[in-house]
Amino acid sequence: MAKILVAYYSKGGNVKKMAEFVAKGVKEESCEVTVKTVDSVLPDELIHYDGFIFGSPTYYGQMAAPVKKLIDDSVILHGKLEGKVGGAFTSSANIGGGNETTILSILQAFLIHGMLIQGTAKNDHYGPVAIGSPDNRAEKQCIALGKRVAKLVKIILI
Amino acid sequence: MAKILVAYYSKGGNVKKMAEFVAKGVKEESCEVTVKTVDSVLPDELIHYDGFIFGSPTYYGQMAAPVKKLIDDSVILHGKLEGKVGGAFTSSANIGGGNETTILSILQAFLIHGMLIQGTAKNDHYGPVAIGSPDNRAEKQCIALGKRVAKLVKIILI
Amino acid sequence: MAKILVAYYSKGGNVKKMAEFVAKGVKEESCEVTVKTVDSVLPDELIHYDGFIFGSPTYYGQMAAPVKKLIDDSVILHGKLEGKVGGAFTSSANIGGGNETTILSILQAFLIHGMLIQGTAKNDHYGPVAIGSPDNRAEKQCIALGKRVAKLVKIILI
Amino acid sequence: MAKILVAYYSKGGNVKKMAEFVAKGVKEESCEVTVKTVDSVLPDELIHYDGFIFGSPTYYGQMAAPVKKLIDDSVILHGKLEGKVGGAFTSSANIGGGNETTILSILQAFLIHGMLIQGTAKNDHYGPVAIGSPDNRAEKQCIALGKRVAKLVKIILI
Repeated sequence: MAKILVAYYSKGGNVKKMAEFVAKGVKEESCEVTVKTVDSVLPDELIHYDGFIFGSPTYYGQMAAPVKKLIDDSVILHGKLEGKVGGAFTSSANIGGGNETTILSILQAFLIHGMLIQGTAKNDHYGPVAIGSPDNRAEKQCIALGKRVAKLVKIILI
Repeated sequence: MAKILVAYYSKGGNVKKMAEFVAKGVKEESCEVTVKTVDSVLPDELIHYDGFIFGSPTYYGQMAAPVKKLIDDSVILHGKLEGKVGGAFTSSANIGGGNETTILSILQAFLIHGMLIQGTAKNDHYGPVAIGSPDNRAEKQCIALGKRVAKLVKIILI
Repeated sequence: MAKILVAYYSKGGNVKKMAEFVAKGVKEESCEVTVKTVDSVLPDELIHYDGFIFGSPTYYGQMAAPVKKLIDDSVILHGKLEGKVGGAFTSSANIGGGNETTILSILQAFLIHGMLIQGTAKNDHYGPVAIGSPDNRAEKQCIALGKRVAKLVKIILI
Repeated sequence: MAKILVAYYSKGGNVKKMAEFVAKGVKEESCEVTVKTVDSVLPDELIHYDGFIFGSPTYYGQMAAPVKKLIDDSVILHGKLEGKVGGAFTSSANIGGGNETTILSILQAFLIHGMLIQGTAKNDHYGPVAIGSPDNRAEKQCIALGKRVAKLVKIILI
């Protein structure tokens, strides 16, 4: 059974809510999902998942430092995560507030691990963005991301 | 008197409206402003302005091809635009629709010309984003961009 | 049989050489490859390929205008390219000369089409970069990109 | 007298060497320069400088987590750094190894603080890149960055 990790950092709770919506999408595709805060993920542990979806608030246009720390620590697995699937989501104070660059900062790290990423032709192309607390629009985007990554993982695992 | 060019590409009219708001901001700072579509700007002509503010719809996450053509053609002035001031704005169909990367695609080109750019600590940090037609929020951001670039041009020209 | 398009714009010939190396990599994986200049590709035609690899010189930190034109024109297929595989490569005058942002400008467009992209844990993570004419190092990167995209296309097509 | 901070994170020593070359460039423009590691910079302290130049190794295509931590902690000064000048540099294992995106990750954070950044029409347009240990080419780029930021600070302070 395909295993997907949703790891997030959330101070005010918005990103946590998004993580739960993403997890819901993963489950709808009948994949196993683990939801954790980034500081409770051991870098070693990443090897056991087929896909990772990381969430971060938008802090100065990139992932928050605790998310970056997990990425930096994942160097112990460098080269061993090739072909796994990645995705990213963020909550931001403003439209045009650095949310796309935050998502891309995570996706670029996944590319450097040799991982696969997929965009979507609809709405939030790089990954879901909530402006503040996730509204209905953002909820749908999060569920869609969970499904998209899960579907791709299932294809890769065949 | 400081001279600023607002150059834009607009198919549906949203970016044109934004260009007019940006120009209003420039005038509020008592600078001379010229508003033109990108295809009516001769690359040679850029040398006569102290600052450029380019607007584009969000087309696949970067400036539209006609805007890129003007940038590519500006290579005849390469090295001669150093120290001039740049800014950028965009209209996009969606939040998370590639708008930030569109603005950054223009700002990166300006950096490669050795130009100056400035962000803002408030709202649309890299440059104004309208979701569809510019609403009151986007209008204020556009005026603020015009003022910001004009103020910076006046400092540089002292 | 999996069909891959290598489309490029080349003024001085460096990107053309890279396109040929990329095509060589695709063939080594027993996929059918078509190599064309971007202006000879009809936007309609993209639907017939399973993967696209686009090459551009580094012009002001993004893909050259003729490559962007093909991307913009591909909007007639918007939503229909989801799940296809993309890749990108560039030749640049300098290290730190805008080459990574050029590759990412193409990859971001592919994500907005809902396509899949994959990085590599080795060397040129986002896609191959040649500094000027492709040397032996760049040649290997190009062949590796062709193979990577072809392998992924074969997995997706199963 | 204009005061500039060069703050860096360096594990192997390459970024430290670059920081010293950058500082040399600042001094050549008769500005006061302070060179510190990022973990010895108090966020409060940033207010006392007219410009900041941050250096980081290329870790998964963005600034290293300790550099991001300083950026995140600088939120206590949000809005108060507007109009200050920023610059960035990096050392990377490879050409196309994520070095440009690392520099841009720092520059984007500075834009979100409302700061000024300037590119250069020559060589490493966004900021200096060393491939491994800084060679003669990288040394020149670093000195040029120090001079560029210092010159701009002097103009702004008039």
